[in-house]
Formats: sequence, C-alpha cells, structure tokens
Amino acid sequence: MRAVDLIIKKRDGHALSSDEIAWLIQSYTRGDVPDYQMAAWAMAVFFRGMDDRETTDLTLAMARSGDVLDLHDVAPLTVDKHSTGGVGDKTSLVLLPLVAAIGLPVAKMSGRGLGFSGGTLDKLESIPGLRVDLDAATFRRAVAEVGLVIAGQSAVLAPADKQLYALRDVTGTIESIPLIAASVMSKKLAAGADCIVLDVKAGRGAFMATVEQARELAQRMVAIGTRAGRRVAALITSMEQPLGRAIGNALEVKEAIATLHGQGPDDFVELCLALGAQLALLAGVAETPAAARARLQAALGSGAAWHKFRQMVQYQGGDLRCVDDPALLPEATLKEPVAAPQAGYVSRIDARELGLAVVELGGGRARKDDPIDHSVGLVLEAKVGDWVAQGAPLATVHANHIEALDRVRERVVQAFALSARPPQPLPLIFETVS
Amino acid sequence: MRAVDLIIKKRDGHALSSDEIAWLIQSYTRGDVPDYQMAAWAMAVFFRGMDDRETTDLTLAMARSGDVLDLHDVAPLTVDKHSTGGVGDKTSLVLLPLVAAIGLPVAKMSGRGLGFSGGTLDKLESIPGLRVDLDAATFRRAVAEVGLVIAGQSAVLAPADKQLYALRDVTGTIESIPLIAASVMSKKLAAGADCIVLDVKAGRGAFMATVEQARELAQRMVAIGTRAGRRVAALITSMEQPLGRAIGNALEVKEAIATLHGQGPDDFVELCLALGAQLALLAGVAETPAAARARLQAALGSGAAWHKFRQMVQYQGGDLRCVDDPALLPEATLKEPVAAPQAGYVSRIDARELGLAVVELGGGRARKDDPIDHSVGLVLEAKVGDWVAQGAPLATVHANHIEALDRVRERVVQAFALSARPPQPLPLIFETVS
Repeated sequence: MRAVDLIIKKRDGHALSSDEIAWLIQSYTRGDVPDYQMAAWAMAVFFRGMDDRETTDLTLAMARSGDVLDLHDVAPLTVDKHSTGGVGDKTSLVLLPLVAAIGLPVAKMSGRGLGFSGGTLDKLESIPGLRVDLDAATFRRAVAEVGLVIAGQSAVLAPADKQLYALRDVTGTIESIPLIAASVMSKKLAAGADCIVLDVKAGRGAFMATVEQARELAQRMVAIGTRAGRRVAALITSMEQPLGRAIGNALEVKEAIATLHGQGPDDFVELCLALGAQLALLAGVAETPAAARARLQAALGSGAAWHKFRQMVQYQGGDLRCVDDPALLPEATLKEPVAAPQAGYVSRIDARELGLAVVELGGGRARKDDPIDHSVGLVLEAKVGDWVAQGAPLATVHANHIEALDRVRERVVQAFALSARPPQPLPLIFETVS
Repeated sequence: MRAVDLIIKKRDGHALSSDEIAWLIQSYTRGDVPDYQMAAWAMAVFFRGMDDRETTDLTLAMARSGDVLDLHDVAPLTVDKHSTGGVGDKTSLVLLPLVAAIGLPVAKMSGRGLGFSGGTLDKLESIPGLRVDLDAATFRRAVAEVGLVIAGQSAVLAPADKQLYALRDVTGTIESIPLIAASVMSKKLAAGADCIVLDVKAGRGAFMATVEQARELAQRMVAIGTRAGRRVAALITSMEQPLGRAIGNALEVKEAIATLHGQGPDDFVELCLALGAQLALLAGVAETPAAARARLQAALGSGAAWHKFRQMVQYQGGDLRCVDDPALLPEATLKEPVAAPQAGYVSRIDARELGLAVVELGGGRARKDDPIDHSVGLVLEAKVGDWVAQGAPLATVHANHIEALDRVRERVVQAFALSARPPQPLPLIFETVS
C-alpha cells in the first residue's frame, strides 16, 4: 500500500477499507507514514467525512496502537463516563461515586484541564495528599476493592490518537466530527469499560456550538461504541451557562461534596441523576428510567454515594479531614463580589469567558505545563433566569493576587447579559442518543 | 501570523490576502512552516480553490523565491512557450527556431522527460556534442547573438514551486487547477519572457483529460500572466493521438529537422504555425492571424527557420554534420514493423500507452535519474482516420534489445483501435484562450 493512494481515495470521496485504515494508522505510528501525508489525509477527511464503518475502524486501529485494558478479572462489568468538556463541570466527582454506590464498578482514567475547560485530575488534586498517578496494579486493585477509582493514565492508551491529535491541532483538522468521535472513543475503548455514558455538551461554553453538531457527534460515538461491542448511550446537554455555581478546582470539590450531602445546585444534581440513570440502564441494574433514578436518589439520600467518595479519597491517599471539613481545602486570600452594573434578569452567562477568567486567576492552564493554583475561581451568585438588583453580586471572585482580581472583575461583568424581561428557560438536557 | 490560522481560513472557504500568501510561501521556503502544515493547506486549496488574485499572489510569491530573470539588457522583448506535456511533442524544436527567424528572440529553459511524456532537453541531447547546461552568461549571450537558446535551468527558478510540487506529489494534491497554474506560471514568470504562449493539451495522452479541464487551466494561466504584466495566450490542443509520427528522442529530432525542411507531418506543422502566430500577435509583429501565419510560412519555406535551428545547434556545441545529415544521429539496431492484426480504420491511438512503450524501450525515464537511450522509439505508420489492411504496419519499433522489442510489440497493437467505419475526424486545436 502507498499512503498517497489512500489520501487520493479519500479525497475523491471513497471509503477506505478496514485493512487500509489499519495499515495507515500502524504505519503512521511506526513513523513510516510521515506527518505531511497524515495531515493531507486528515484534511481530506474534514471535507469528505467517513462512514460509521470507517470511523469504527479508525477508532479500533488507534485503540490498538497501545494498551487495551481488560478489567474482567477484577470486575465482571465496569462503567465509564466521558464529557466533551465544559465550565464548572465537576460531574465525575459526584456521578461516579453515585453509580459505584448502586454497585456499578467504576474504572475511570481522567485528564487535566486546558484552556477554558477544567480537568477532573486537577480538581481531585485540590484534596491534600490525593494521588492520581496510580500504577496499573494499584488502579486495578482499587476497582476490585473500592469499586471506584479516578486516576491519570497508568496505561499507554491510544498513542496513535495522541500523535494524530497533536498533528490535527496544528493543521486545522480538529473540527471534523468523525475524527473527534474516533479520538474520544479510541481512549474509551482502550480503557476497557463495558458500559459508557457520554455527556456531549452543546452551546457557547462547549466544543460543539449547536445541538445539531452535538447530536451528530453523539450519534457517531454511540455507533462506534456499539459496533465495537460496548453498551453506549449519550446525553446532549446544555453548556449555555456554567454547570452548578462553582468554577475552579477546590471550589468545585466543595460543591461536589455539598452535592453528595444532598445540597447540590438543581441543574448539577439533575445532570448527575440523568447520566447515572443511563449507566444503570446500560448495565441492566434497572428496568426503567424511573426505577434507575429512584435507586440513584436513594444512594444519594442515604449517604451511600458520599461514603463511596470518601472511600476513594482514602484509597488514593487523600486527607479525609479535608473532605469531612471542606473549610480545610485550599482557600484563596481574596474574596470579592462582582456587582451587577444595572438591575435585570440574567439572560446569558458566557461560560467560556468565565472559564478563561479562572485561567487568568491561575486556576487553569493556558499551556500544557503551567502550574495550577487550586484555591482560586469563581462562585456564581446568580444564574440564567434570576433577577438581580443593581449592585447585587453576580459572582464572587476567589483570588490570591489583587492584579488578577482587578482584571477578572470586568471580564465577569461582561460575561453576564442582563435584560429587562425574563429570558426563555434554558433546557439542561436536550435529548438522549442510544 | 500563524500557519494554522491560514489553513483554517482557506479550509472555511475564504480567500487569503496577498500578505498572507507571501508570508506562507516565504516561511515555507525558509523552513519555518513545516511540510505537514503546507500539505493540509494544499488539500484545503484542492477542495476550496483559489480566485485569480490569490493564484497570482501565489505564483508571484513562488517566482520571487528564487532568481527572477530580466533579459531586457540583451533583448528588448523575448518570447517563451510552454506545453503541458504530451507524447511525440517536439514542438519546441520547430516552433522556437521559427519565431526566432521572424525576429522574436527566444530564451527558453526546458525540462527533461518523466513517465510517458518526453522532454525537450533529452531530445536535443540526441545531437552529439550539444550542451544544454549553459551558465547564465552563456545563456544571455546566446539570446543576444543568436536570438535563440534552449537550455536547462541555469538560474534557480522558483525553488518554492519545486519544494511545493514535491510535497503535492506525495500528498494527493497535484490535481488542483489553481495549484497547477501557479506552478507552471511561477517558472515562466521567473524565466523573464515578455510574451508567452501556452499549449494546453487535452485528451487521454495529456494531464488534462477533457477540454473543459484544459480550458479552466488555460484561463487560469492566462489570467495569472496578464495580472503579472506579461502578454499571454493559450491554445487548447488535442492529445488524443501522438503529435506527428515520431516518438523517441533522436527520432523526434529527425522529424523536427524534416519539418524545418518543409517535410513535416500536417498536424505538427499546423500546431507550430498556430502557436507561432499567437506569439507573433502577442509580440505585435503581425496585425492579424493571417498576416502572422504568412510570415511564419515564409520563414519556414525560405529556410530561415532551419538556419536559426542550425545556428542554435552550433552555438550550443552540437555536431552540425549530424543535423545536416540526420542519418548520422543515433540510430537503433533493430527496426521492426508492428502489423495490424485485422483490417480497419484507425479510430484511436492511445498516446499515453505509446509513451510508456518508449520508456520500456529505454527512451524515457520511469525514475528521475534513469539513463536514456536516445536512439530508440516508435514511428507511426498510420494515424487516426487512416485505413490499414490486415498485416500492414501500424508503427515501426526502433529498439536495441530484442526482449524489449517483443514486449513493446503487443503494447503497440493494443494502443491502436481499429473499426470498420471511418471515425469522426479529430480536431487538432479546440480553441484559443487570451
């Protein structure tokens, strides 16, 4: 085979065969196919697309480029969750203990934040002592003993995806639905879970701006997972405003702990229950959505989910005193409300802008290796639909440097749109794809 | 500027500015923009195209990446010709002496053959002693003293084009009309001629399969040249059968010499007169096509064109005895007619197939550095529309190895289609673009 022939085949609108796709990815990973040919192929895919069979072949080829975990020796069935990334999205911290509490073992390999979007590992590391760099044996043992683990990649998952993603990032080929779907699913399939729920965000604070795009991506990912023999469902959810109220690492952990104690913000609780219900249905531990929700609500109300979270923190070396008394978690020195410049109904909150404001405070990363200040962030005092009086707080900024605080104040004001009439209610969940 | 932003801009269907194109080409030539970004950009251009302004900017940026000749100190006006490449296309060997003979100085930098298509330099080197590797000073002196020179590139013409073309060749991005047009014209503009005639071939033996594609390419190239301040016209001509009767280096030189003596094949003579008339009109030495043709026919009939050819051969060190008596040119040891397997009218001659047959005889190159046997080739004994009896010769094979001759015989038979009824006459020239 010659790479140029495969590029031309795709360029001219034909589907590559399974063998051709496997050869291309293997040759690229080995260095036999150079970046410039892969870049031309990716651009041809951007324009011509790939059908579900091709996309699944690509996903499997990338998954097989590294370790492919099989966890069936430690648990008969494991579940996993993936979010396409949002602002204030601490869902994993609540959802995963919750489903673990109803008996679904969770083996989650998570990532770090970059740009406006936070990362679960950074959030967890707000808890003093907690380690996310578990070796493979410790990771597997946690699944068997606790039934819940959230860690960094202990295995080499889909290195071909990593290589291709870095190339796409500099060649204008990120924005291709089949390539995005294959990238996400290659890591999910390699991580070994039997049941996977996908939270595909749509809106200004998300990678997919519209519900239509999000639906296309969700359908692709569900198709890939199903063709690869996994049970997969997706929810399309709104990222037109931040999820919950807290944005920033320790602040989000505090909100997650409150939620596990039954005191979470409505939208966030609802999202965790909806995603959890999908996992319960996929895993076959509930017959109907209503039954699934009832089990999850019971696990939340009884403290079982909180107990599971606490077990995980302990197993991974975290200081239990800090989760039992969240006031001991890292805390910023400056806390200042940002006042509404006029009265009105909050009609829009630009989640992306607020995510970037937290980066500016030091709570996120502009570049991959930037250090992180776990204590800083924002807490929203008003959400879309709320009435605020002039001078009433829109959000509280948690900062450690007065200069950063000053810069962020104006950004927060700009992120809130206020209107004289109440806005249309924002839906939280648009639809389910399964 | 960042290359990825320019890739995305083109990917999304926008035109790049003049500054952006100049920056991209300069950065690529310097090595600051890597091949993988250039490959993604080229594929985006394949899908999105470029308008005439962008294409001209690209052409000029590539032309300016190397030497840009100014010949006005040696001649007030020079003319040049370019063919998109065909089989049996020895046009330069006759056309250029012809226009030089009516007083239009020719400074032509030519190329070598690759694949099924021959190259003027290889043909000229059939003449013992003739040198095509002239240094810049000798090249310029030839223009001033002889008014005609055909040589290899003594200057570094459009190195950015060379670099980009090599990349396109392995990334499936050759077949883009604006990129082809920019590639051709960047070298033409750098070579310094004031008037340029383009012979754009259409048909199975050409790079452009259809007249529509050829027209699009011709219009592009004329637009670029005109925007860049040159006088440019194009003819769209047929390559549905080889041009003239000879294919192969020394054989084509012999046919060119015969043509300069007034004994050329009709189609070949007609093409030289048509292209020459365009140059005469562009240069302003004739008022009407009819007047231009009359001047050219006079120069052919009087022997003036032949005299100019002989002067060029002498100036470039060729052995005049060999052109005065072409029997002294390299000659193959085996000459064998290929017989028609049945009677019929010749309805089609696959020029590409015959070009490849000559490569197989050793008269062309499969790879860039292959040596060449100047003596071998084919002479057509019948052309489209001719009646041949069963057993009558279709072509004569000139070979030096019996094995190659045997392999080629069948190829020649296959290249000729014979039918019971006379075919539609093939047009030679489809249209003029100016």
